[in-house]
Amino acid sequence: MIRTVEQYLESLRDGRVIYNSGEKVKDVTTHPILRRVVKGGCMDYVLTNDPEYRDLFVAQNEKGEDVHFLWTAPKTSEDLLRKRQAYIEGSRFGGVGLHSMGVDGLAASRVVAGRMDSKLGTNYIEHVELYREHLQSTDAGVTGAQTDVKGDRGLHPASQVQHKDYYVRIADRQKDGIVVSGAKYHISATPACNEVIVLPCRTHMEPDKDYAVVFWTPLNAEGITLISSEPTIRGLSTEETYWDYPISARHGIGDSECMIIFDNVFVPWENVFQAGEWQFSRDIAYAFGTFHRLYACCRMVPAMENMTGIAALMAEYNGLEKYAHIQNKLAWLANVTESLKAISEAACMFPDKEVEADLVVPNGMLTNIAKYMYADNFHEATKVVQDICGGIVADPIQYRDWMNPEERPFLEKYLGGKAGIPTEHRLKAIRYLKDATGWQHGSHSIHAEGSLAAQMKMFYFDADWDLYKARAKRAAGIPGWDEHPAVAATRDLGALTEEKMPPVDTSYNV
Amino acid sequence: MIRTVEQYLESLRDGRVIYNSGEKVKDVTTHPILRRVVKGGCMDYVLTNDPEYRDLFVAQNEKGEDVHFLWTAPKTSEDLLRKRQAYIEGSRFGGVGLHSMGVDGLAASRVVAGRMDSKLGTNYIEHVELYREHLQSTDAGVTGAQTDVKGDRGLHPASQVQHKDYYVRIADRQKDGIVVSGAKYHISATPACNEVIVLPCRTHMEPDKDYAVVFWTPLNAEGITLISSEPTIRGLSTEETYWDYPISARHGIGDSECMIIFDNVFVPWENVFQAGEWQFSRDIAYAFGTFHRLYACCRMVPAMENMTGIAALMAEYNGLEKYAHIQNKLAWLANVTESLKAISEAACMFPDKEVEADLVVPNGMLTNIAKYMYADNFHEATKVVQDICGGIVADPIQYRDWMNPEERPFLEKYLGGKAGIPTEHRLKAIRYLKDATGWQHGSHSIHAEGSLAAQMKMFYFDADWDLYKARAKRAAGIPGWDEHPAVAATRDLGALTEEKMPPVDTSYNV
Amino acid sequence: MIRTVEQYLESLRDGRVIYNSGEKVKDVTTHPILRRVVKGGCMDYVLTNDPEYRDLFVAQNEKGEDVHFLWTAPKTSEDLLRKRQAYIEGSRFGGVGLHSMGVDGLAASRVVAGRMDSKLGTNYIEHVELYREHLQSTDAGVTGAQTDVKGDRGLHPASQVQHKDYYVRIADRQKDGIVVSGAKYHISATPACNEVIVLPCRTHMEPDKDYAVVFWTPLNAEGITLISSEPTIRGLSTEETYWDYPISARHGIGDSECMIIFDNVFVPWENVFQAGEWQFSRDIAYAFGTFHRLYACCRMVPAMENMTGIAALMAEYNGLEKYAHIQNKLAWLANVTESLKAISEAACMFPDKEVEADLVVPNGMLTNIAKYMYADNFHEATKVVQDICGGIVADPIQYRDWMNPEERPFLEKYLGGKAGIPTEHRLKAIRYLKDATGWQHGSHSIHAEGSLAAQMKMFYFDADWDLYKARAKRAAGIPGWDEHPAVAATRDLGALTEEKMPPVDTSYNV
Amino acid sequence: MIRTVEQYLESLRDGRVIYNSGEKVKDVTTHPILRRVVKGGCMDYVLTNDPEYRDLFVAQNEKGEDVHFLWTAPKTSEDLLRKRQAYIEGSRFGGVGLHSMGVDGLAASRVVAGRMDSKLGTNYIEHVELYREHLQSTDAGVTGAQTDVKGDRGLHPASQVQHKDYYVRIADRQKDGIVVSGAKYHISATPACNEVIVLPCRTHMEPDKDYAVVFWTPLNAEGITLISSEPTIRGLSTEETYWDYPISARHGIGDSECMIIFDNVFVPWENVFQAGEWQFSRDIAYAFGTFHRLYACCRMVPAMENMTGIAALMAEYNGLEKYAHIQNKLAWLANVTESLKAISEAACMFPDKEVEADLVVPNGMLTNIAKYMYADNFHEATKVVQDICGGIVADPIQYRDWMNPEERPFLEKYLGGKAGIPTEHRLKAIRYLKDATGWQHGSHSIHAEGSLAAQMKMFYFDADWDLYKARAKRAAGIPGWDEHPAVAATRDLGALTEEKMPPVDTSYNV
Repeated sequence: MIRTVEQYLESLRDGRVIYNSGEKVKDVTTHPILRRVVKGGCMDYVLTNDPEYRDLFVAQNEKGEDVHFLWTAPKTSEDLLRKRQAYIEGSRFGGVGLHSMGVDGLAASRVVAGRMDSKLGTNYIEHVELYREHLQSTDAGVTGAQTDVKGDRGLHPASQVQHKDYYVRIADRQKDGIVVSGAKYHISATPACNEVIVLPCRTHMEPDKDYAVVFWTPLNAEGITLISSEPTIRGLSTEETYWDYPISARHGIGDSECMIIFDNVFVPWENVFQAGEWQFSRDIAYAFGTFHRLYACCRMVPAMENMTGIAALMAEYNGLEKYAHIQNKLAWLANVTESLKAISEAACMFPDKEVEADLVVPNGMLTNIAKYMYADNFHEATKVVQDICGGIVADPIQYRDWMNPEERPFLEKYLGGKAGIPTEHRLKAIRYLKDATGWQHGSHSIHAEGSLAAQMKMFYFDADWDLYKARAKRAAGIPGWDEHPAVAATRDLGALTEEKMPPVDTSYNV
Repeated sequence: MIRTVEQYLESLRDGRVIYNSGEKVKDVTTHPILRRVVKGGCMDYVLTNDPEYRDLFVAQNEKGEDVHFLWTAPKTSEDLLRKRQAYIEGSRFGGVGLHSMGVDGLAASRVVAGRMDSKLGTNYIEHVELYREHLQSTDAGVTGAQTDVKGDRGLHPASQVQHKDYYVRIADRQKDGIVVSGAKYHISATPACNEVIVLPCRTHMEPDKDYAVVFWTPLNAEGITLISSEPTIRGLSTEETYWDYPISARHGIGDSECMIIFDNVFVPWENVFQAGEWQFSRDIAYAFGTFHRLYACCRMVPAMENMTGIAALMAEYNGLEKYAHIQNKLAWLANVTESLKAISEAACMFPDKEVEADLVVPNGMLTNIAKYMYADNFHEATKVVQDICGGIVADPIQYRDWMNPEERPFLEKYLGGKAGIPTEHRLKAIRYLKDATGWQHGSHSIHAEGSLAAQMKMFYFDADWDLYKARAKRAAGIPGWDEHPAVAATRDLGALTEEKMPPVDTSYNV
Repeated sequence: MIRTVEQYLESLRDGRVIYNSGEKVKDVTTHPILRRVVKGGCMDYVLTNDPEYRDLFVAQNEKGEDVHFLWTAPKTSEDLLRKRQAYIEGSRFGGVGLHSMGVDGLAASRVVAGRMDSKLGTNYIEHVELYREHLQSTDAGVTGAQTDVKGDRGLHPASQVQHKDYYVRIADRQKDGIVVSGAKYHISATPACNEVIVLPCRTHMEPDKDYAVVFWTPLNAEGITLISSEPTIRGLSTEETYWDYPISARHGIGDSECMIIFDNVFVPWENVFQAGEWQFSRDIAYAFGTFHRLYACCRMVPAMENMTGIAALMAEYNGLEKYAHIQNKLAWLANVTESLKAISEAACMFPDKEVEADLVVPNGMLTNIAKYMYADNFHEATKVVQDICGGIVADPIQYRDWMNPEERPFLEKYLGGKAGIPTEHRLKAIRYLKDATGWQHGSHSIHAEGSLAAQMKMFYFDADWDLYKARAKRAAGIPGWDEHPAVAATRDLGALTEEKMPPVDTSYNV
Repeated sequence: MIRTVEQYLESLRDGRVIYNSGEKVKDVTTHPILRRVVKGGCMDYVLTNDPEYRDLFVAQNEKGEDVHFLWTAPKTSEDLLRKRQAYIEGSRFGGVGLHSMGVDGLAASRVVAGRMDSKLGTNYIEHVELYREHLQSTDAGVTGAQTDVKGDRGLHPASQVQHKDYYVRIADRQKDGIVVSGAKYHISATPACNEVIVLPCRTHMEPDKDYAVVFWTPLNAEGITLISSEPTIRGLSTEETYWDYPISARHGIGDSECMIIFDNVFVPWENVFQAGEWQFSRDIAYAFGTFHRLYACCRMVPAMENMTGIAALMAEYNGLEKYAHIQNKLAWLANVTESLKAISEAACMFPDKEVEADLVVPNGMLTNIAKYMYADNFHEATKVVQDICGGIVADPIQYRDWMNPEERPFLEKYLGGKAGIPTEHRLKAIRYLKDATGWQHGSHSIHAEGSLAAQMKMFYFDADWDLYKARAKRAAGIPGWDEHPAVAATRDLGALTEEKMPPVDTSYNV
């Protein structure tokens, strides 16, 4: 089904328990802050119903029904490239928020269900595919909840001292389903979603087996409490906030995050995709990480393009575009932006195959490289654009001052830049940068979709160390290189060449 | 005179024209935002009147009168060390804001007045010393205004296209004084100051000579309009804002900055310390830069100590304090903090002497190194502490949620860290970090008291290239090293040693 | 023609004037140092004659003759991918040195010849294609000479003070050809090549038009003197040098570089591809840079794989492979290595089209990103591997000590690492690292195929600033974004969404 | 006693067992390579006998005898400043190599002997002071041996698998002394020293107590074998090598290092300063580290000054000195150089007091900061100077070419730089840089006197975390800050200020 915006809005009036800034929210669609998030949610349905974007976002399922493309399973490199395209184009409009965490959670669940079913004889594939059918027919908005609140980071889930709920766990196993408790933190787009897929955020050992749990549930289930985060800007978006905070007035990072508390929530068995198979926690965590970091890269493409462009504009507005050090800074920004695009594209072109399942996963190494690329450089990029912009990014003029007719003539006169550039254009670029380099972006770039350390871990996990080591052994003349078939197959052409060389003339003094 | 807090508060009701958030401010001492800045101003007078700090902050002038120590001229290394101490201790309480920009402006003006008087036969020393007497007897709060609005950064002041007022300039020279026009931007503590010292921010050539102007004026002079900056947090500081923003609720960076517009302001000759001596603009800009960067370093000592400490606390609260990579990150923070302290102290111990004037200036090279040390590393420090803190720094719980009895039990339970640490302690440390790593700190660390490029320029200007090059020539065997006396004086002890060595045994195969 | 090794060796006995270490060289194929370079040259012909590699390296030209694939013109993305493959595989054996500089010079010359002919009516395409035919039929080894000796870098070629030959120039124009003078520096593989393509290294203005010159010449032409560079290791490669310097004993970077002096060398017109068309100097410099940086990336693939592998081996040999900080360092190395591979591959997949000429050029932005990737990180990689290896990389045991039966038992006993690893394996890995992180690699990584600054310049040149700026304007609400068609075409879906939203509930306190 | 050069040279003919490049050395003073090291050793005695340097290097001991100043115990900040001065000035001439490792070993042994004697009732102070008397009367050259060969770095000394001698240990305890076995690696200046102080390189636990051993021994003791390292340049220093390698021809890093093998060496009790007190291994390792890193900083002062100077010369010779990015690079180098000097000076001014012993130790935090400063930046500095120098640093012209009259005119003409600079000056500066940025310097800067990780560890160990945390708690409003006296003593002046403020005017809309 291709859901309409109206159907979507109606679906959110579902009795959920949600707080914002200490107040209970009656209706997320009319709440001054949360409506910004909901508006972003609407975009997902605008796109599928729009004649221009329909081809990208709508696909036919096996029954020939029109469904949201992102609810289909990626089977080829082309599917991943289309997914990447959908994520990038959707992100330009602040959309796909309801079709990214959940989509990636479903994809990861399917991959690991296949592995569990074949190794352990479970029937999780059936559960996952049942959910896919449900989603294709309802086109519900779904988030994915991975990060637990964690308690003492130095202790395993089952070893926590104060209580056992620092990681979401199976508190009870019943005939019809499981009962789960725990809390997940900074789960994006939750106020605007209908459902959530919950999955573990770490590797487990056997004592932690109750924490090896994957399931989906509607967000209005009994026992669920949502606490939404501090808004980036207070109150409703108005002409003033659009001028002062052009990014946050549209979709503040702060607005969309939620803490989700599970207080003995019942989940029927058919909604469960893992329940105790602790040996596969790492698989699900890594698979979700890889799928979702591809999304992170896509989301950042417009953000980095915009930041690079604003930096170029500010260089021009300030009359600095001819200076070599400014050009170098702009060049460096373009380098980061284009690397992000090229490597994330390569990650789709050269996917990892999930052979038995006839599925593909974005290339683990390349996806993590692309994510690390922008995350590791974001703070530096912030520094660079602040440097080009000048000190005024720290204390730019407000809309209120600009609109006051007594102050306006002074501001018009004194805050101009290069001749020919209207002062207001310059001020808007500066306000954009203030908003774009706010603390939330820096910490979000690092932590969202996995910390830098998470990518490092994946580099180590995904790299082909046997090949590197065999090549190195051969290069250094260390025996054992021929244990790797690819390197063993390489003949010693150098020896062949040596034979052809004439004898040495020993008369030189060298 | 040692001014009382009461005298100070009364002095601010002086009819000045000042705007905040688009509204004209009637009285800065009662305005919800600006009173935070004024409260910081009060601290300057609390310190001089406090029995514990009096010894540090009060000195006797040549007439034997008690005066604020910072209004005396630094003549020795000890004076600079005491000044550094006063800046650091005052900054711990959010004070010395009224005795730093102005103090450094006065010191720089005195140094350059000496140079101009001796080279050009002017009598600027007299003007500066007259002002010092005025300040010693009134203890007025004084800011220093250096950064112009600049217009097209690629053009010299006199070559600007749209108008000639992008840099403050002498618009008219009259019998009794000068008339100035232009605008200065992000001038700290202005709403809480009585007076301002204005000085140029760049080097000038002869065509720019009207821009070579240094003077002081009361802030309520006719023709001055003040536009104060966007507050870091809106509204009055309350229990809620203290909990949510423990730094900004005390002294938001955003609160204290002002744009100062000079619309044909008259300045009597005795208030003028430079008027057209364009050859000395660089001297005044560099001298103020050096004095004021020492202040910047002092202001950052408590800030960096606090940030390092909070990072150590968060490591502990999260149960991470035993991990090697966390210890490395903490070690790196301690390294930056202690380098800042040691190098700024060395800058006072080994000052540059202003010989004829019997004055000292903080060591130019070392002061700039210390400033660069924290400014260049601040974004990285931000990244490091965000990394240790975890993703929750991006969306921490608000006071409003914490105080809601329905939400509180969930928050108490789930947001705990290591056993034994109250959840609220952990939340407060996180809120502190959110506040401390906000965008304003990053851009402030770079731009306030001069951009990174400004310090680079000073490294290049202050380094003893002749010595480096002479040493290098000698090391590389390039003639000309003996043109530098210190290097010429170094004898060739190696040759002496060679003579003592026995002959070589040539039987080895090496 | 597919040349044999024997034919190649014979061709080098051509009477050329070449010096090594201050001695005139009689025959490069028998000189103790230069034979290492010649041996590398032989590899080019071993590969084309080898049954396993023939398919990769041999192609058919339009006449159906077997020719070296690298002498054909790249017309499609597939051609570039094959070229990349040939460069990588050849580099694994120390080959393609005679088919890279020249190949890239020919490709760049062809592209720019097309532009000149169509804009200026010249007939350079004919000259280039004539040379291609010659090369396809002789399969001569060709180097490319770009870097001039430059003199005062602050002055243009024609403004040099001491003499006019700091950049190669047309000293005379005659009926049958031109006479050139000047000198090129660090021209790789020259001792082993038959011919050289000479091209400019910089942009020119009209006064420099005599410096806008592109041509080819045999290296034994009258007036050419070659001075080959200091060898990385002295003397002939022996069992000792292979043990001590496993890389340099095969193909020392130092061995292959030459200074080529042109002392009034005559070049017939048909060998000339540019002669005074100064407006196209930049085109040829940039085109060659892009083609040749793709080669640089390919050459570095095996080098980075080997270095990453040796680091992994050393971690293991030292018993350190389980430590998190060691894994992070290895992960970072793998990241750089795989980024280099992925981005250089993308550069071939998304080439820039030279439309009228039916040719392709590797993607300028991506090629430069890939080159910068390893060049900017090479010194850091060096630091990382030295760190993992331990201090012994600074002073490893020599072959001579290892082979001395009195020392051997001590060395066997004490220089072991983890149990089970033969001491000699560990020592060989350390010797490899000493060789691989030698200064020549660091400076080579930066300067060969263009300095870091050269890539920065290309980022700035190649980036699509209009698109970035238009996107940024739209994001910041600055008019003018609709001047870019791609951005203009993006509709305001946000407004559409806004219409669908219900009215706001104003009863909240947010 | 103030030893003469002649006495010193004679003392080295002592029957020691030493190998170089696989050959047994008959006499270190006449061996082509090792005489370079011995010549450096002579410098120590030239300095004490030179009228100009005598005052710095000669002191009176308590008996009024003239002794080498560095053999006296540092008791005050002034002593440390003089020691620093002696280290820096001596290093300018390649001296103090025989009075640095040993001197620092003696100082560290004395500090820890005091701690052991007072806690455990041992009498190690007596042993140490006996040795000091011996040294003051003989002025022997002494090295310090800390780094063990280590075997499997993942295992403790006593847990090594292959054998127990990977760390030097007490193999037997006898009536008159101990018998030690093991091997130490890269021990500087050994061929030119008479004696060695041996100390542990790591923390120990009780099972490792036989490895907790500190002692001194003459280097010709029975059972000691020395294997000296691969020379940086082969053969004797000649006019050619001085031209080509101006640093290494004087004192190659590679020449002076030794592996010292202890094969059941007997050490009498009075030479032993620790024997089994495993709880104090960390103390001795850290104390030696701190003392010796101060030396490392001093040694690097001339090296960094020279490198900075050569970079400035090359900028000038290449005609690049006016370019902003070149000035920035030079400025950065000056920054590193001067930071190193200022922080190492501060480390002496604010020493750590060893209270009971009436001794001082260089400030641990600051010494490690200074060492880290240059070590962490050395590879980057290398990159920067190579960048300024240009590609020719990779393959500079050799002396042999320069001296060949056929090549010379070409080289004179083409390798010139800015007009007015003789070509040979430019070539010498380039050769200096090739030598100065060689791999050995990079790895030496990191590993000598302790890896980067070692300084990180010390930052963590030395930082005053309690103070940082207490300040942070106070800043964030977290209870417990008053447990630290310095922070507890800070009153809440902010509250005092608040009382003085007038009430708020609530009529504003902010």
